Amino acid sequence: MIETPYLLFLGDAPDALAAKVAQGIKDWRPDNCVGQFRMDGCKANLGLTDMTLAEAKAAGAKTLVIGVANRGGMISQAWKKVLVEALEEGFDIASGLHNLLRNEPDLKAVAEATGRTLHDVRIPTVQYPIANGEKRTGKRCLAVGTDCSVGKMYTALAMDKEMKERGLKSSFRATGQTGILITGEGVPLDAVIADFMAGSVEYLTPDNDADHWDMIEGQGSLFHASYSGVTMALVHGGQPDALVLCHEPTREHMRGLPSYKLPTLEALRDVALTLAHVVNAGCTVIGISVNTQHLSDDEANAYLAEVEERMGLPAVDPFRLGAGRLVDALVALG
Amino acid sequence: MIETPYLLFLGDAPDALAAKVAQGIKDWRPDNCVGQFRMDGCKANLGLTDMTLAEAKAAGAKTLVIGVANRGGMISQAWKKVLVEALEEGFDIASGLHNLLRNEPDLKAVAEATGRTLHDVRIPTVQYPIANGEKRTGKRCLAVGTDCSVGKMYTALAMDKEMKERGLKSSFRATGQTGILITGEGVPLDAVIADFMAGSVEYLTPDNDADHWDMIEGQGSLFHASYSGVTMALVHGGQPDALVLCHEPTREHMRGLPSYKLPTLEALRDVALTLAHVVNAGCTVIGISVNTQHLSDDEANAYLAEVEERMGLPAVDPFRLGAGRLVDALVALG
Repeated sequence: MIETPYLLFLGDAPDALAAKVAQGIKDWRPDNCVGQFRMDGCKANLGLTDMTLAEAKAAGAKTLVIGVANRGGMISQAWKKVLVEALEEGFDIASGLHNLLRNEPDLKAVAEATGRTLHDVRIPTVQYPIANGEKRTGKRCLAVGTDCSVGKMYTALAMDKEMKERGLKSSFRATGQTGILITGEGVPLDAVIADFMAGSVEYLTPDNDADHWDMIEGQGSLFHASYSGVTMALVHGGQPDALVLCHEPTREHMRGLPSYKLPTLEALRDVALTLAHVVNAGCTVIGISVNTQHLSDDEANAYLAEVEERMGLPAVDPFRLGAGRLVDALVALG
Repeated sequence: MIETPYLLFLGDAPDALAAKVAQGIKDWRPDNCVGQFRMDGCKANLGLTDMTLAEAKAAGAKTLVIGVANRGGMISQAWKKVLVEALEEGFDIASGLHNLLRNEPDLKAVAEATGRTLHDVRIPTVQYPIANGEKRTGKRCLAVGTDCSVGKMYTALAMDKEMKERGLKSSFRATGQTGILITGEGVPLDAVIADFMAGSVEYLTPDNDADHWDMIEGQGSLFHASYSGVTMALVHGGQPDALVLCHEPTREHMRGLPSYKLPTLEALRDVALTLAHVVNAGCTVIGISVNTQHLSDDEANAYLAEVEERMGLPAVDPFRLGAGRLVDALVALG
């Protein structure tokens, strides 16, 4: 559990895209962000108040979150200087970088000396159980994709936001580093030991109120040869009552696999439902979330209408149109 | 890679079942076994020559393999005495125990002082790649089960043996600790980090001669809520040309999951083939391996005949009947 609120560290981001983790936190949990910290030459700007470490501390910030990708897989000396000062000012530091904070001897030493915590959210800190498959109370919705990186996290976050705006009970359940930094907790599923994957998802989505929904962040794809085992653990550990199919219609091949075509939405529906029924006989597909960022408005509308007609399910782009119709379909499950 | 041949350590096994790992090595790789080492009170006997450490060393043994389960999850002082002497005599030690040899400070110190190797085969020693899904040369057969522990390893080993007896090219590819101890190498798949599971299976079953078959040891089941992600990685990393369906017909529920019934062989066939076709469009189910240990001869024969008729595929118990008909079906694929 990462202490909030955050000061978002944008470092020397060469462009806005490099700071997309920080952007995600600001977009989805604005109340968790007291300000941004930018170094000389930073080209990203979230529109938050620029603060020094001391100013952020005075404003109540508890954790400095590294919201920017680093260059060349190194934590630079320029970054280090800020991170050391932050620890000395009393901040914890949270990071989803591949190279771990804890593997930097100077940061580790200062954190120990100051009693602060280094959160490397890519690494599990919990000894997860083996999954037991037992029926849990409460309800769960899982986003599954025709491919990796088609909008599963965005879809789950948008549905969670809509649920909360309607006064309904909902929790976004993070399974990747960006999601964990956004919510301050979760399971870094791709780094869990094989035998404990499904158990970690059960741990993440425990018994809850009968009318509470977990919106589980998906990972990978059942059709992605590299990561399908991770997705399988989400389906069987997550015990979903509802699935949302996620798709990006302009993708020419599976991400990172040039010789693999994407499956059809029908193929995804059939495989995902068959597998979900192993753990939850009542699971249904409630809608389709399409990432239309590479389509014009007209193209997007035409594509969504065609999919909706063909699949007999609400088809929306939650970024353009909001997640209202997906939440309507969840609520209609009762 | 564990150096062969082995001296099989049976310790103070309370019964034959406690030494089943040693029994497996002796059954499947008798040429790797120069003898057995039994302590006072040992109730297991593989029928190998009892040897002292010095006798085994003189007979050429390179590695002492712990072929017996330990009691209470502890490596006892009585065992330790033998293990330390073995290191001092020049043996490596290999173990599939949950508690690791390397976590015993005295064993670790002696191994370092003598330059010997402690092989804890439950723990990966390789940094496996992310799977790339690219088509590999050679052929692969994967055993998939309706449940865990239904005879997948036995089936793959029996088919490998039959292939070799016919002078055909075959390798048993171990994915669990017993299999790794039997062959001296493999991937401890259940201990691999999630993102690298499928890649570890690709690593295990690399390019090979066009007429060479890998017989891949299965793990878990696509229908087992706790471990299905591991099985999925085998299907997508293994890129199988052939599947063998494995089943135990008297099982009343999924192993460890009292509220889960086993799937039908038809359900397993359909799901496993659909998933295998993602990575290998030509994959087919070539036969069914039934563990009939809890059936009489008459019951077994009747059951196998019924399954063979119903599924339209050879159905055998390789323990009772050998794997000849399964290998016939493989060979018939050309």
